[in-house]
Amino acid sequence: MEEIKRVEPRTLSGFMELLPQDQIKFNEMLETIRKTYELYGFLPQETPIIESSEVLLAKAGGETEKQIYSFKKGDKDLSLRFDLTVPLAKYVAEYYNDLTFPYRRYQVGKVFRGERAQKGRYREFYQCDIDIIGDGKLSIINDAEIPSIIYTTFKNLGFSNFVIKINNRKILNGLFDELNISDKMTEILIIVDKLEKIGMDAVKEELKKLGLTDENILKIEEFLNINGTTDEKITKLKELKFSSDIFKKGLEELEEVIKYVRLFKVEEENFMVDLTIARGLDYYTGTVYETNLKGYESIGSVCSGGRYENLAGYYTKKDLPGVGISIGLTRLFYNLKELGLLTTKKKSISKVDIITMGVGLEKAVEISNILRENNIPNEIYKEESKIKAKFSYANNLEIPYTIIIGEEEIEKKMYTLKNMETGEQELLTKDGILEKLG
Amino acid sequence: MEEIKRVEPRTLSGFMELLPQDQIKFNEMLETIRKTYELYGFLPQETPIIESSEVLLAKAGGETEKQIYSFKKGDKDLSLRFDLTVPLAKYVAEYYNDLTFPYRRYQVGKVFRGERAQKGRYREFYQCDIDIIGDGKLSIINDAEIPSIIYTTFKNLGFSNFVIKINNRKILNGLFDELNISDKMTEILIIVDKLEKIGMDAVKEELKKLGLTDENILKIEEFLNINGTTDEKITKLKELKFSSDIFKKGLEELEEVIKYVRLFKVEEENFMVDLTIARGLDYYTGTVYETNLKGYESIGSVCSGGRYENLAGYYTKKDLPGVGISIGLTRLFYNLKELGLLTTKKKSISKVDIITMGVGLEKAVEISNILRENNIPNEIYKEESKIKAKFSYANNLEIPYTIIIGEEEIEKKMYTLKNMETGEQELLTKDGILEKLG
Repeated sequence: MEEIKRVEPRTLSGFMELLPQDQIKFNEMLETIRKTYELYGFLPQETPIIESSEVLLAKAGGETEKQIYSFKKGDKDLSLRFDLTVPLAKYVAEYYNDLTFPYRRYQVGKVFRGERAQKGRYREFYQCDIDIIGDGKLSIINDAEIPSIIYTTFKNLGFSNFVIKINNRKILNGLFDELNISDKMTEILIIVDKLEKIGMDAVKEELKKLGLTDENILKIEEFLNINGTTDEKITKLKELKFSSDIFKKGLEELEEVIKYVRLFKVEEENFMVDLTIARGLDYYTGTVYETNLKGYESIGSVCSGGRYENLAGYYTKKDLPGVGISIGLTRLFYNLKELGLLTTKKKSISKVDIITMGVGLEKAVEISNILRENNIPNEIYKEESKIKAKFSYANNLEIPYTIIIGEEEIEKKMYTLKNMETGEQELLTKDGILEKLG
Repeated sequence: MEEIKRVEPRTLSGFMELLPQDQIKFNEMLETIRKTYELYGFLPQETPIIESSEVLLAKAGGETEKQIYSFKKGDKDLSLRFDLTVPLAKYVAEYYNDLTFPYRRYQVGKVFRGERAQKGRYREFYQCDIDIIGDGKLSIINDAEIPSIIYTTFKNLGFSNFVIKINNRKILNGLFDELNISDKMTEILIIVDKLEKIGMDAVKEELKKLGLTDENILKIEEFLNINGTTDEKITKLKELKFSSDIFKKGLEELEEVIKYVRLFKVEEENFMVDLTIARGLDYYTGTVYETNLKGYESIGSVCSGGRYENLAGYYTKKDLPGVGISIGLTRLFYNLKELGLLTTKKKSISKVDIITMGVGLEKAVEISNILRENNIPNEIYKEESKIKAKFSYANNLEIPYTIIIGEEEIEKKMYTLKNMETGEQELLTKDGILEKLG
């Protein structure tokens, strides 16, 4: 291999690659999310990473399309998926006859966006999505189950200080209906969505530029300023006595969602009604969600989503309403790590490292077999190294226990178990080992 | 949405996409493989799917390169990973100073090869790899642990009829050394590797075309015909009394591996020495493995690998010997399904579907919460549908139990639990439900 031309090993910027201890934590979070989604009975789904460009870009245009990784292979135009929603729409339309509705699925997988490289922005990142798709109709109670799933997921991830913000797009739309400015709805929503970022004065300025009357701007401001507890907000919305049907429908839905969110035992401190949330794009049509970690609002929403009228209009005539959310795990992990907020339990894969001292590996293999049969992850240090090197291996990997086997242990048919954190050592029988580690 | 131009929803050929019941089975297999690898203390690794072409194709050329998905984004030449070994080599070279050796890692992920579409051949498929990488050296006992991992993995996947074939490339190389035909080693190995496919006569024909003497061809045939039990084969190899050092070294390694494979409790019926295995390419330098499902040899090896001298020669001067294996899960799953051999346990995600009859969902939410708190996956049927539709939902998804809540149940503060397989129904209290399903 003397004449090899070497290439510098490097990973592209915008692509996350972790060292083992961090990867263990990342996988633990991924597993927690999966297991929580399954606790609510969601079915696993997996769609290809590569799709036909024609299919993936059916709803083309906008910023997203520029970011998509597209290429030709042979005579095929291919693209890497940029979210898990378009593949879901394709899947439901393609296998409509084989699915049972409401179709409740989760998909956890990587998506790809060639965004400008920025701290905490990734070009290849995990999304963890759940969606419930109805065939023609879908009960509003599904919209109330979603905050319960967000709540349980973040609790299971080790968080307690978070708030799920709930709104209903029909309430916002109803406001514009009431004020006779529905023709400017999309533009207004885009402006209102920036409220938290740019503040009320700037929002009013932009609304004025859009041509709204001072009276209407004032009414929008009053509306956005509705505050108090969840129940107070709902009371104030009722007191507006708007005659718009869409407003009434939205308020009714929101009340039903809040009632069931409470029945689902989401704690009051972990959810709120936030009338300013619009979720930008014109995709959502009813309930919308955002989730913030309290005190860390600057990292943005860590779990968002909402209700949409029609999932797969670009693929099928079938009417497929749905509701769903997404957690962007790669970015969340990055932020938690930066903030020192990683709250995982697992430090290592092996629970025990088996080390021999001046004897063969036979007895090490024997106890390793027994531990594995008892479902205890373990490994044998097999290299001929100095004792110090053997123990640093276990220390570096944060393996909590070592079993030490030397001549004395072989003679006595015992094992020395060392707690690597406390340094404490005990001479134990096989059963003693199992009792201690099982 | 009237004017939408619709696109036919379809998935590219060569890309696996499963319906929910199959996806549940696939994920169960994936999870079993992961959990088994972790039982041996392997650390999780995850490398990006997209890498710089320069890095990924450092060892360029051959059939593989033609199959690679490469493309430009901006001014960057990018490629999708085509295996998990090259990314491992990059990773170990890149993070050498941060890793603890021997570095034991597993990676489970999709790789991409634009192969000609063929039944059971996929362009996007899962590989499940483990490798143990030494820093400068790596004990031969690691080579013996690998068959133990294959054995436990396939046992855990529900197989009993499989055989792990073990050979050592040094024995083959030593044979050629002994016969003074080492200059033709690579060509001969490629021919010998085809033995099972084309038969002994065709192999001899090809060796003759290569210019080997009849005497040498006869000796190779005798060697390849060595048969009997594992111990008989080793005895016969010894009786050859070859003077080649490389042959002696290979035989010594094979004996040590076999000794430890037995200590690792791999059953005799599940492994064998097969002197004909070379694993084609000139990558492997010592122990090599293949795994066949008995009676289904035609689907090829379901788990292969071996020992290599130097993992990352294209990225670093460091000497990094290793040993590893790979399971191509997508193809294995396809074959098992085709053959009717899928032996998974899980039929559904939810264990219970909660159904209401003529009452609100309040009590359904209550018992759903309790079940979830007790870690029992469940879901509520929330739509206003006919009773029949509610039960077909549970039947279609093969959910084993339903809880039925009607007026009677609410009055009595009880729940009707129905076993969907037997049709048996019982009126139970909350505690009764938990006892039955817990």
